[in-house]
Amino acid sequence: MTAAVEQASEFDRGTAVTPSAGHPSVYDAVLDGGWRIGGGINGGLLLAVAANALRQELAPANGHTDPLSISAYYVSPARQGAAEIRTEAIRSGRTVTTGAATMLQRDEDGKPVERLRVLASYGDLDKAVGEVRTSATPPQLPPPDQCVSSRLAPPDFLDQAALLERLDLRLDPRSVGWALGEPSGEGRIQGWLRLADGREPDPLMLLLAVDALPPVTFDLGLFGWTPTLELTVHLRSRPAPGWLRVVHSTRNLAGGFLEEDAEVWDSAGRLVAQSRQLAVVPRPA
Amino acid sequence: MTAAVEQASEFDRGTAVTPSAGHPSVYDAVLDGGWRIGGGINGGLLLAVAANALRQELAPANGHTDPLSISAYYVSPARQGAAEIRTEAIRSGRTVTTGAATMLQRDEDGKPVERLRVLASYGDLDKAVGEVRTSATPPQLPPPDQCVSSRLAPPDFLDQAALLERLDLRLDPRSVGWALGEPSGEGRIQGWLRLADGREPDPLMLLLAVDALPPVTFDLGLFGWTPTLELTVHLRSRPAPGWLRVVHSTRNLAGGFLEEDAEVWDSAGRLVAQSRQLAVVPRPA
Repeated sequence: MTAAVEQASEFDRGTAVTPSAGHPSVYDAVLDGGWRIGGGINGGLLLAVAANALRQELAPANGHTDPLSISAYYVSPARQGAAEIRTEAIRSGRTVTTGAATMLQRDEDGKPVERLRVLASYGDLDKAVGEVRTSATPPQLPPPDQCVSSRLAPPDFLDQAALLERLDLRLDPRSVGWALGEPSGEGRIQGWLRLADGREPDPLMLLLAVDALPPVTFDLGLFGWTPTLELTVHLRSRPAPGWLRVVHSTRNLAGGFLEEDAEVWDSAGRLVAQSRQLAVVPRPA
Repeated sequence: MTAAVEQASEFDRGTAVTPSAGHPSVYDAVLDGGWRIGGGINGGLLLAVAANALRQELAPANGHTDPLSISAYYVSPARQGAAEIRTEAIRSGRTVTTGAATMLQRDEDGKPVERLRVLASYGDLDKAVGEVRTSATPPQLPPPDQCVSSRLAPPDFLDQAALLERLDLRLDPRSVGWALGEPSGEGRIQGWLRLADGREPDPLMLLLAVDALPPVTFDLGLFGWTPTLELTVHLRSRPAPGWLRVVHSTRNLAGGFLEEDAEVWDSAGRLVAQSRQLAVVPRPA
């Protein structure tokens, strides 16, 4: 790892990729156990690693550095340790470049096992100009110091959630009833989010932000983790520095699956990211 | 084309695929101009063709016939005529099988040109059992015979929209102000949908249904077509026979792009499909 990366933020170290010597379009990464949550490496962080590799592969052609849309299908649980991202440029256009990526790890016999498969269309968010007619409204939250820090979670919970040490997550008091035995039943969790070490948000960090809150199923009184099958994120604006506001919600928990929608609003009041994931409803313990 | 397909419905003929002789995992299709809308072949129909090929490739392993989640990145505009779908099985699991597909057509020199790239996780919707806690509510619509048939659109519009002859689409009178010079500005269009020849809905038909209504931008007073960059559909239940209710909505038209959400409700009141696409805002004429 270069000296520059060593001094970089936790998020930049966690998503760093290096071209694999002798293997064009392949990048190496190390998945750090500090991004663990719910028994696996956080899905948004995995997506950010793959997105960083894709950016390095695709951006030189036309300067398309930002995923406007990116979709990940989670194939098998990633483990901490070495990972390899194989990238493919599908089409380079004037405003949009589309590509694919697969993240692999090696099993005990050195055989490659796929962790996730990604498709994305990259562009330049600085060129995403045009009137803003957003009719969605940001969540109304008490100030961060009046919200509930995720660091207050019980120690046995935090032991399984190393991710939370890298986030400064402050949940709306109305969104934490589930932690006190009284889930609201509404299927909504919201709060303030920034990285614990103060690194400002940028497009790749938004890919972590959409998957950083507790599972919305907690607010429905369903505990246990909700494995993600698929996650698609739309990045709509380069985020301003400062706190993000994040809302997770679900409206269709049925048949053993649920969709979880996330919205991320920046400090300038822009809806900078929207995502939806399809996840599996936790089985009763 | 087999006799069985010739007698089949328009949708089944339009989505028929045959294994390509001598090319394992490759399927041939013919894109029919009768599915044209807005200067191209309807994106939902293209997705259904690719999904049919993927189903034929993936289902034999574990009986996973239904796309639980499917994502398409649209790379270049498809034309009527021959098309080829190359499929790949990524991972066959007990409950979910994941695969990829690419749809290609040949240019004048016979060179393959990619039209769309697809990722999907297939399962068996008959096994998607578990309590239904859907909090979303279906649209309240006047009966179909009191809604506005898309066949009433002006002839010059219908000329560019052959798709509409294959659909029986009845729009909520509150959703057609834009056709009368008075867009509501809300960014919502809803109505009843079924196939014109009476073929009942099934999972593949839902992939068409989520992309079958007029662009929601019409309701914002923005005319012109909205090319789709990416479309992800979650299929949540096998639809009951009969009319579908479809709602399209947008909340974040900004910076030259918009997200368009679709919900499809079946005659039994289930939310059978949810989708989101990222599309380009039409430039003023």
